[in-house]
Amino acid sequence: MYERIPKEGSSYSRWFDYVMEKAELYDYGRYPVKGCGIWLPYGFKIRRFVLNYMRKLLDETGHEEILMPLLIPEDLLSKEKEHIEGFKGEVYWVTKGGEEDLDVKLALRPTSETVISLYESYWLKSYKQLPRKYYQIVNIFRYETKATKPMIRVREVTTFKEAHTIHETYEDAEKQVVEAINIYRKFFDALGIPYLISKRPDWDKFAGALYTIAFDTIMPDGRTLQIGTVHNLGQNFTKVFEVRIQLSDESIDYAWQTSYGISERVIAALISVHGDDLGLILPPEFAPIQVVIVPIPIKNMWDKILEISRNVYESLKAHNIRVHLDDREEYSPGYKFYDWELRGVPLRIEIGSKEVNTGTVTLA
Amino acid sequence: MYERIPKEGSSYSRWFDYVMEKAELYDYGRYPVKGCGIWLPYGFKIRRFVLNYMRKLLDETGHEEILMPLLIPEDLLSKEKEHIEGFKGEVYWVTKGGEEDLDVKLALRPTSETVISLYESYWLKSYKQLPRKYYQIVNIFRYETKATKPMIRVREVTTFKEAHTIHETYEDAEKQVVEAINIYRKFFDALGIPYLISKRPDWDKFAGALYTIAFDTIMPDGRTLQIGTVHNLGQNFTKVFEVRIQLSDESIDYAWQTSYGISERVIAALISVHGDDLGLILPPEFAPIQVVIVPIPIKNMWDKILEISRNVYESLKAHNIRVHLDDREEYSPGYKFYDWELRGVPLRIEIGSKEVNTGTVTLA
Repeated sequence: MYERIPKEGSSYSRWFDYVMEKAELYDYGRYPVKGCGIWLPYGFKIRRFVLNYMRKLLDETGHEEILMPLLIPEDLLSKEKEHIEGFKGEVYWVTKGGEEDLDVKLALRPTSETVISLYESYWLKSYKQLPRKYYQIVNIFRYETKATKPMIRVREVTTFKEAHTIHETYEDAEKQVVEAINIYRKFFDALGIPYLISKRPDWDKFAGALYTIAFDTIMPDGRTLQIGTVHNLGQNFTKVFEVRIQLSDESIDYAWQTSYGISERVIAALISVHGDDLGLILPPEFAPIQVVIVPIPIKNMWDKILEISRNVYESLKAHNIRVHLDDREEYSPGYKFYDWELRGVPLRIEIGSKEVNTGTVTLA
Repeated sequence: MYERIPKEGSSYSRWFDYVMEKAELYDYGRYPVKGCGIWLPYGFKIRRFVLNYMRKLLDETGHEEILMPLLIPEDLLSKEKEHIEGFKGEVYWVTKGGEEDLDVKLALRPTSETVISLYESYWLKSYKQLPRKYYQIVNIFRYETKATKPMIRVREVTTFKEAHTIHETYEDAEKQVVEAINIYRKFFDALGIPYLISKRPDWDKFAGALYTIAFDTIMPDGRTLQIGTVHNLGQNFTKVFEVRIQLSDESIDYAWQTSYGISERVIAALISVHGDDLGLILPPEFAPIQVVIVPIPIKNMWDKILEISRNVYESLKAHNIRVHLDDREEYSPGYKFYDWELRGVPLRIEIGSKEVNTGTVTLA
């Protein structure tokens, strides 16, 4: 039932799809809309731990979580000319409601700079209200015409963390770019994902930004994957959205913005960087199950073994360790070892006759 | 700056909109797409606490969180005839990707019974895999033609918790309906929202269900608001999606399903049920700020008062209380009292000359 696929090199892509499926992370490739998949319970839990850590980093640096509308009317999305030029080839459009044609086409958000800028023009009038740092974690849509790949190149990006900040001066925005880079450094360091930071050439910057700084990692097939970007937006959006602010010297000027984002590519990188030929390897902080207990079936001792297993389970649980007792009788210990290694459980405890007799446990 | 609007009776609707805006919960009514709004930081935090409690109730009863695609192709959504009949008048359709017309129209999910049933036909083959209880918390879309109202009747329902369960027998599905009702009871009890439970008449059941049980509450204007529904879906979806299962007696049959949902209407009810003419009143478990400290400016004592305020702040924070120190110097204590009452902070601590001299604090 289990295969051993070399992670490194040319078989990486097959390894990745195999782990996705067998570890039950993300069901991909059989939904009738190309580029859309479904997060399965085990994968969803990894996603939850990763996002909670990102939320912690953002919350403790004064970022505020909000939730903006998915639908963006065509004229709103088109206000900043470079922005719409960059995105118009890959936007999904809603044109009908019920049986009626809509008066105005509605985009499924590809990103939300236009929406936040509209609201900032309502909310913010004075430098005293600045800086503000907002973020949301949402799905976004890109009508990709290239080959899609689960979590890496999809049409529904299910997990887009986009931060949007606004400042009184250019210098403040520059400082925010540095803060954003430091937050992402900390994030990727905690996930154990190596990265390179570089400024993108002009032709490759975010559509509407002054410049873009990107985080790249190297995947096991040797290709680079962009896993995070930080943009200094200058006054490009605040000018067209009329986000005018009274400055501390009492003059009036357009505010300055930055934005920065990560997506489920981070989880693809987490899986790919740490995994081995047997499957996932997860850092304990992000593992849905940190310890699995496998009781070894021994004739005449099974009840005793189960009892000890349950005691170990309860005492680990009492210490807030995410522990699972695999007491399924229809599977062999060998099968279970493979199964939990594939799913990247950091620690396995085996309990059999030796453990019962000696009062110790075996860790693997 | 602040008004006092009677919550009960005919002014309720004005009260609700006023509280939404002034307490900065949800910015509604000025987005260019009707029926769409934006969750503001303070409102988002209430939403977070409410959802975390729902997640806890679901996780501890064996529900597994997943995340399904937003886009549903027309033929998938149309498979169950009663279902599409019920929803087709209010579905948003994506018809274009970039500059191209799509071959198949894609619905923005109005609900996800069709998607989960498709996947269950892939995943589930045997009674040994049952029951399974899935849920997701997502946005859904309804092209409402009636008047919209923030959080109550919207086109983008931003916060839809939909659970989908699958069982071997009709009796198991019936038991699941009872479990779902008990979970919702516990949820609404914790939120302090009174409810009536009733079976909907046939013409008002969920499109595709055998029957629907609904939770209603009474709003301050005397109208009822449906705040939760539980559906026994029978085999209606499993038949058209071919979710066939080997039963414990080795025969093959279609599985049985239930689904149940709540939305941000729960938060609208939370606000409306508990509030008073001065604004929000929040149960402490769901309050973003549980205690606010307001130092009273007294000449020659301000430094001392601030120091004590900070000490109180730190010691409450150390006890994991969500505390806020309002040391803004540009606002009077009276203004601050109004402001925090409007936002429903359960407890206020005032620190002034009396408190400094006696070493006590004043609670309000």
